[in-house]
Amino acid sequence: MAKKAVVLVSGGLDSSTVLAIANQQGFECYTLSFDYGQRHRSELVAAQTISDAMRVKQHKVVSLDLATIGGSALTDTNIKVPEHETSGIPITYVPARNTVFLSIALGWAEVLGADDIFVGVNAVDYSGYPDCRPDYIAAFEQMANLATKAGVEGNKLTIHAPLIKMTKGQIIRLGIEYGVDYSATVSCYQAAADGTACGVCDSCRLRKQGFLEAGVKDPTRYQNST
Amino acid sequence: MAKKAVVLVSGGLDSSTVLAIANQQGFECYTLSFDYGQRHRSELVAAQTISDAMRVKQHKVVSLDLATIGGSALTDTNIKVPEHETSGIPITYVPARNTVFLSIALGWAEVLGADDIFVGVNAVDYSGYPDCRPDYIAAFEQMANLATKAGVEGNKLTIHAPLIKMTKGQIIRLGIEYGVDYSATVSCYQAAADGTACGVCDSCRLRKQGFLEAGVKDPTRYQNST
Repeated sequence: MAKKAVVLVSGGLDSSTVLAIANQQGFECYTLSFDYGQRHRSELVAAQTISDAMRVKQHKVVSLDLATIGGSALTDTNIKVPEHETSGIPITYVPARNTVFLSIALGWAEVLGADDIFVGVNAVDYSGYPDCRPDYIAAFEQMANLATKAGVEGNKLTIHAPLIKMTKGQIIRLGIEYGVDYSATVSCYQAAADGTACGVCDSCRLRKQGFLEAGVKDPTRYQNST
Repeated sequence: MAKKAVVLVSGGLDSSTVLAIANQQGFECYTLSFDYGQRHRSELVAAQTISDAMRVKQHKVVSLDLATIGGSALTDTNIKVPEHETSGIPITYVPARNTVFLSIALGWAEVLGADDIFVGVNAVDYSGYPDCRPDYIAAFEQMANLATKAGVEGNKLTIHAPLIKMTKGQIIRLGIEYGVDYSATVSCYQAAADGTACGVCDSCRLRKQGFLEAGVKDPTRYQNST
């Protein structure tokens, strides 16, 4: 019987590639997304489309009102999404987001009896986000093994972050090899309701560069493109 | 200026005592509760009452649909709350609950610029819950310091769990010394809408014993008491 894995999917390029990797490794995949007050809700549609395309066992969307605690341009409508980030920790950083998402994934893994959680964090493009670094993932895994029934009963819970040291171009090449349809994914920080991208935010810029680096035609649907 | 602290409050006896402790230590307190699909929603009313009584700076309730991932008698209406738990990890255990709650507290602490988080976990009464043990709290703190801006910038984030080794009687005696009105708190796993307690679930049983141990009259409002 295939081992179960919980895979965090945002509908974006990175997490869709991670799902393809988990599939390729033979896991029975359960995908988890969050309705957390993000501006770009079309990513939830993309997460469902990608989950269906990759024939996951189940896709769940957990509602979580992170906008209540504020602090990020991605959930707080009083903060404008900048076209270019300055140095340091970006304003698009959602406080403790990966920790919150991984924690809920941990809870679902416990319910399912899964010992594996996949997450698409990346330390190359998101060097300004503290919760995208290898040390952080290792510390979360250690905590998780103390937090849960599985850990207490001796099962080892593993947090897989297969993209953590890959460039965007490497991620895209691997995803294409595994059959990911990137035209269905949404990365833009301010995507329109139909999933079209602004083309100018940091996330769009990184994505564009990735397709260039990978030497692959960019299938992204941009706003106002003719 | 007083240091800020985020205090997790459930409306129950333990977390109300923790809030009194944080107050007593001179912190400016920001209390955080969750609307997570729990059966006993009267605890949210109690959390507000207690927060008001202790004059906190702000009380927030974050909505989070933990029932989506299921697995506990406290959120899954298909699982009955037992009158007495058998040995091992109880069915009232909500998967990864403390991890999820602490993670969101961590996010809010980051937004507020607070370096201190208080939580009412207890390893004496809840020995069956993996995420109530000192090792777990230490591992969470370590992870938190890698997860956040504060940690990256060299501020030390501290998770305070002042009740972790106290008996229920000790907790109650301390709370009474600090002026906690326990009649406003709700501990029952299946409290009624008006906050009255069933008197028979594990949580009620522990609470009753606590007042006995403390030598204090039990102010709890029980259902059907005359």
